[in-house]
Amino acid sequence: MKEVSLLPTERIDDLLTYDLKIIQSDEVFSFSMDAVLLGRFSSVPPKGRVIDICTGNGVVPLLLATRTRAEIWGVEIQERLADMAVRNAEINDLSDRLHMVQGDLKTIHKTLGHGQFDAVTVNPPYLPVPNGEQNGNPHFAAARHEIHCTLEDVISASAKLVKAGGKVAMVHRATRLIDICCLMRQYRIEPKRIRYVHARAGEEAMMVLIEGMKDGKPEIRTLPPLIVYNENEEYCQELKEIYYGGRSSLEFS
Amino acid sequence: MKEVSLLPTERIDDLLTYDLKIIQSDEVFSFSMDAVLLGRFSSVPPKGRVIDICTGNGVVPLLLATRTRAEIWGVEIQERLADMAVRNAEINDLSDRLHMVQGDLKTIHKTLGHGQFDAVTVNPPYLPVPNGEQNGNPHFAAARHEIHCTLEDVISASAKLVKAGGKVAMVHRATRLIDICCLMRQYRIEPKRIRYVHARAGEEAMMVLIEGMKDGKPEIRTLPPLIVYNENEEYCQELKEIYYGGRSSLEFS
Repeated sequence: MKEVSLLPTERIDDLLTYDLKIIQSDEVFSFSMDAVLLGRFSSVPPKGRVIDICTGNGVVPLLLATRTRAEIWGVEIQERLADMAVRNAEINDLSDRLHMVQGDLKTIHKTLGHGQFDAVTVNPPYLPVPNGEQNGNPHFAAARHEIHCTLEDVISASAKLVKAGGKVAMVHRATRLIDICCLMRQYRIEPKRIRYVHARAGEEAMMVLIEGMKDGKPEIRTLPPLIVYNENEEYCQELKEIYYGGRSSLEFS
Repeated sequence: MKEVSLLPTERIDDLLTYDLKIIQSDEVFSFSMDAVLLGRFSSVPPKGRVIDICTGNGVVPLLLATRTRAEIWGVEIQERLADMAVRNAEINDLSDRLHMVQGDLKTIHKTLGHGQFDAVTVNPPYLPVPNGEQNGNPHFAAARHEIHCTLEDVISASAKLVKAGGKVAMVHRATRLIDICCLMRQYRIEPKRIRYVHARAGEEAMMVLIEGMKDGKPEIRTLPPLIVYNENEEYCQELKEIYYGGRSSLEFS
């Protein structure tokens, strides 16, 4: 593990799977289960170029780095978080192929190019901008609410970045399914694979993992549901494997 | 049970649940599990007016009649099947509030009116029209393939028939999800409730049950999946209850 400097409130956590380390801060940004599920769900090419937008502290690129030899970009609009993402690449000695950049996804194709990526991943803010005055932590607000980008911005940006036949994978609240499907199709990212996440068997879905293909033909596969907790309120076996059962981070490096 | 005349190849089956009888024919039309699931999944008002399009031999209206006091219409384009549907209402002594009509769903609003129904149900043909010559039984072909109506025809017709705030419920192949979602939204039937049917736990979804509300606001609930077979290849408990556990058909009559 490389030495990096930590800012106030930051700590270094194990990413559990893959022997990765991650700098987090409860006052700025900590990764969620959704990011871990997206990092496993998304299709990644064995090599080539992958980009994660709304990357936060870069957790998804770190997870993807264990699954592919591809060059991986991460884009984050908040400078404070983009800086964490850069150090997260450094701390794991992955700076040679993890490129964390501060930028706005609405214009990032101007610097990174149109249709230059084999795959795009995104764990966007889930909630509309609240009415009235915004209170509280601005970092949390930006990660949770569509302040810097709407769902349409995210899908439009993905469509610009990905190449024809490339994949775009997203995690979002299951309640937003129809918006996601219609916007993906509108921007010619045809949804091809979907998986719902239910907290417990017998409960409605909380989250949805969905992946589309640029210019793909219409026909979607609905995978078996992913159930988080068993009847003893422990993680189900599949969740345990996703969290703790990863291959070594060095397998592809 | 009332006496009705049977045509060649027709037989009278138990509809299992609810003490209902149903005239079927292996050479013309027999109901499927999909129809039974739709008959249970769809929201029906306690009274008012409900319509089932692509009704075939009228199985869905028969099932709905056990759940509501509403007047129920069934529309079927094939004369041979519409005639079976009429006799299926008679045989169950439900002709006073089951109105089975032969007609084309693309024009039926001209006789039955715009926005006159509280709920619409539909189990449409699942498959595109095959390329090249069509072989085989024309009744099966029309029930399976989009010969008389496309998915867009079905959703457009539903949108004309249902009133604002009314429900439209459909069963279809899960692979067609995106077409259904986008067309429903296009015709202002906002999908509000969805349930996937998996043959077995751990397998991809076969079918999808989806219900929208005319002029509803965007936000969908994804119900727990419905699993058909357990590990012993028997119907799961919920399926048994749907098939065999119905209330008496007389409860609302």
